[in-house]
Amino acid sequence: MRMYDLLLKKRRGFELEPAEIEYFVNGFTKGEIPDYQASAFFMAVCCCGMTESETAALTHYMAVSGDLLDLSRFGDLTVDKHSTGGVGDKTSLVVCPILASLGAKVAKMSGRGLGHTGGTVDKLESIPGYKTSLSIDAFMAQVDKTGLALIGQTGNLAPADKKIYALRDVTATVDSIPLIASSIMSKKIAAGSKNIVLDVKTGSGAFMKTIESSVELAEVMVKIGKACGRNVTAVISDMDSPLGSNIGNSLEVIESVDVLKGKVKGDLYEVCVVLATEMAVLALKMTPDEARKEVIDALESGRAYAKMLEWVTVQGGDVSYIENTGKFPKTKYCREIKADCSGFISSMNSEEIGKSACLLGAGRVTKEDVIDPSAGIVLKKKTGDEVKAGDVIAEIYTNDESALENGEKCFNSAVTIASEKPSARSTVARIIR
Amino acid sequence: MRMYDLLLKKRRGFELEPAEIEYFVNGFTKGEIPDYQASAFFMAVCCCGMTESETAALTHYMAVSGDLLDLSRFGDLTVDKHSTGGVGDKTSLVVCPILASLGAKVAKMSGRGLGHTGGTVDKLESIPGYKTSLSIDAFMAQVDKTGLALIGQTGNLAPADKKIYALRDVTATVDSIPLIASSIMSKKIAAGSKNIVLDVKTGSGAFMKTIESSVELAEVMVKIGKACGRNVTAVISDMDSPLGSNIGNSLEVIESVDVLKGKVKGDLYEVCVVLATEMAVLALKMTPDEARKEVIDALESGRAYAKMLEWVTVQGGDVSYIENTGKFPKTKYCREIKADCSGFISSMNSEEIGKSACLLGAGRVTKEDVIDPSAGIVLKKKTGDEVKAGDVIAEIYTNDESALENGEKCFNSAVTIASEKPSARSTVARIIR
Repeated sequence: MRMYDLLLKKRRGFELEPAEIEYFVNGFTKGEIPDYQASAFFMAVCCCGMTESETAALTHYMAVSGDLLDLSRFGDLTVDKHSTGGVGDKTSLVVCPILASLGAKVAKMSGRGLGHTGGTVDKLESIPGYKTSLSIDAFMAQVDKTGLALIGQTGNLAPADKKIYALRDVTATVDSIPLIASSIMSKKIAAGSKNIVLDVKTGSGAFMKTIESSVELAEVMVKIGKACGRNVTAVISDMDSPLGSNIGNSLEVIESVDVLKGKVKGDLYEVCVVLATEMAVLALKMTPDEARKEVIDALESGRAYAKMLEWVTVQGGDVSYIENTGKFPKTKYCREIKADCSGFISSMNSEEIGKSACLLGAGRVTKEDVIDPSAGIVLKKKTGDEVKAGDVIAEIYTNDESALENGEKCFNSAVTIASEKPSARSTVARIIR
Repeated sequence: MRMYDLLLKKRRGFELEPAEIEYFVNGFTKGEIPDYQASAFFMAVCCCGMTESETAALTHYMAVSGDLLDLSRFGDLTVDKHSTGGVGDKTSLVVCPILASLGAKVAKMSGRGLGHTGGTVDKLESIPGYKTSLSIDAFMAQVDKTGLALIGQTGNLAPADKKIYALRDVTATVDSIPLIASSIMSKKIAAGSKNIVLDVKTGSGAFMKTIESSVELAEVMVKIGKACGRNVTAVISDMDSPLGSNIGNSLEVIESVDVLKGKVKGDLYEVCVVLATEMAVLALKMTPDEARKEVIDALESGRAYAKMLEWVTVQGGDVSYIENTGKFPKTKYCREIKADCSGFISSMNSEEIGKSACLLGAGRVTKEDVIDPSAGIVLKKKTGDEVKAGDVIAEIYTNDESALENGEKCFNSAVTIASEKPSARSTVARIIR
């Protein structure tokens, strides 16, 4: 087999065989196929697309390029969740304990934040003592006993995807649906869960800005997952405005605890309930109605909150911070951001608000940046709310005094006040089973 | 400017500005833009095409990446000719002396043969003493005095094209019309002639197998040339069968001399007359009818032949070989190839016949191969001719006894004899002015 022939076949519009995709993924990962041929391949895919069979094969061979987590001892009870990334998206911290409290097995590996979007592992690290790294044995034992363990991704999970992504990132071949879908799914497949719920964000703060493209990505991922023998459901949820009110690492842990304690409703609560419901449908073989009832009951009964306490404790975290979120350190500087006119908040551009939080210290611009766990933003108003001039729209928190000015400016650029109330967007636009 | 943004713009279907193409060509040639971005660019071009403006800019910046021949001292009299490559195509050896005898200035750089197609420089080197390398001063002085000089390409002619072609060759991005057209035209533009006639071959032995693709390539090249300020005409000529009867280096010189002496008519004569006519139309401002009359007169009066003698002499060649082509050395081995049945020759696949000549020693498989100037094939029958079983179809010549068997086998695989006379193909299918 020669990569040259695969390139010619692909650009002429023929479908590649699984064995050809395998040859490419293995050859490129081993360094036998040079970057210049691989980048030409990704560009051909961007221009010509990929069939279902090609996309499934690409995902499979990227997944098996490194460690594969064997969760078979948990039968069909394992459930994972993936978000395509958003601002204020702390749903994993809520839905994982819900599912574990219902008897599912959540063996989850999460990523770190980059750019305007946050990462679950960074959020958990704001809890003193929480170990985001466990040996596989300890990880499995914890899932067995507690029903839930959540760590950072191991280094050797889908290494082919890592190498491929790095090259796509410098050749303008990132935004191709089959390539995005296979990249996401390869890691989820390697991570081993039988049941997977995908939270595909849509809107200004999402990678996919339109409903149509979000649905297209979701459908491709669901098909890949099924082709790889997994049960997969995708939820299309809104990311035109930030989710919930808190953005920033410990701030998001605090808001998650509030949801688990039943103190917070609104968009965040609703997305968490829908995601947890779909996870329960897949992992626990419930009907959607039963599942939703069980999920709400887990929240209202305090069982989900109790599971969070148990989980954080066994994973080394200081649970007193969960029991009393007032213990999380405050930043040195806080500034109120006020409305400069009266009207309705007509938009809160999530991407810009994410960038503002990043400027305040809550995120990373480059992979090497160090995060300030306390920095961030608390929204006091959300899109659609009525405001009077001088009302506080948000509070911004930072330990870097010099960041206040830019953080505020960036935040303000994200917010539009208009005289008319905007039409409401659905919190959950679609569910693709 | 960033290559990343150019890649994104191109694959999203937007037109690149000339300054962006310049950035790419210069950056890639200097090694500042890595291969993996350049190959992604070529693949995007293969998939999305290029506009006229983009193709003209790519050609221009490749042309100016190295030496540019300044032929302005010859006014508008300079004329060049390019063939997309064929088997038995010795037209340059005929049309250049015709044009010089008519008063045009032919300052021509030609290539060497590779694969199944021959190269003018190799053919001229079969004449003892002929210098295929001259200093630019000597080259210009000869054009001034004799009206014609023909040498090999200088090393620094369109180096960007050389580097680009090498990468396209390993990334399956060769067969893209804008990339082929800009590659050819960049060298012709750098070589400086005001008037250019392109001989675009079509059929089994040509790069472009169909009339449609040949016409498309020709039209793109004509547009590029005009955008770069040159007068360009393209002739679409048949390469389904070899041109003329001789294939091989000294064999083709001999046949060219025969055309110039008026001893040979047929397809080769006709293509030479058409090409020379179009060259005269452009360089000497004649009408097509006038030009054709002048061209035929130059041949019949012996003036074109006299110009060949003068040219070969001033360029160091032993003219006695032209005056008496019987002086060219014969190969040690010759074999007659006979028809194994009676009927009509329905096809002579040029590519296979070119490969057969190559096996006999007349061509190169790799750039490093050494050519045997005497080896080759003389066709005794052509497509459409009637044959009886046992008639000699061709003679094959080689100095390598072991090559006879494979050469014959390859030749035979190229020839089909059928009971019905095939419909005739036009020697010249189209002229695109």
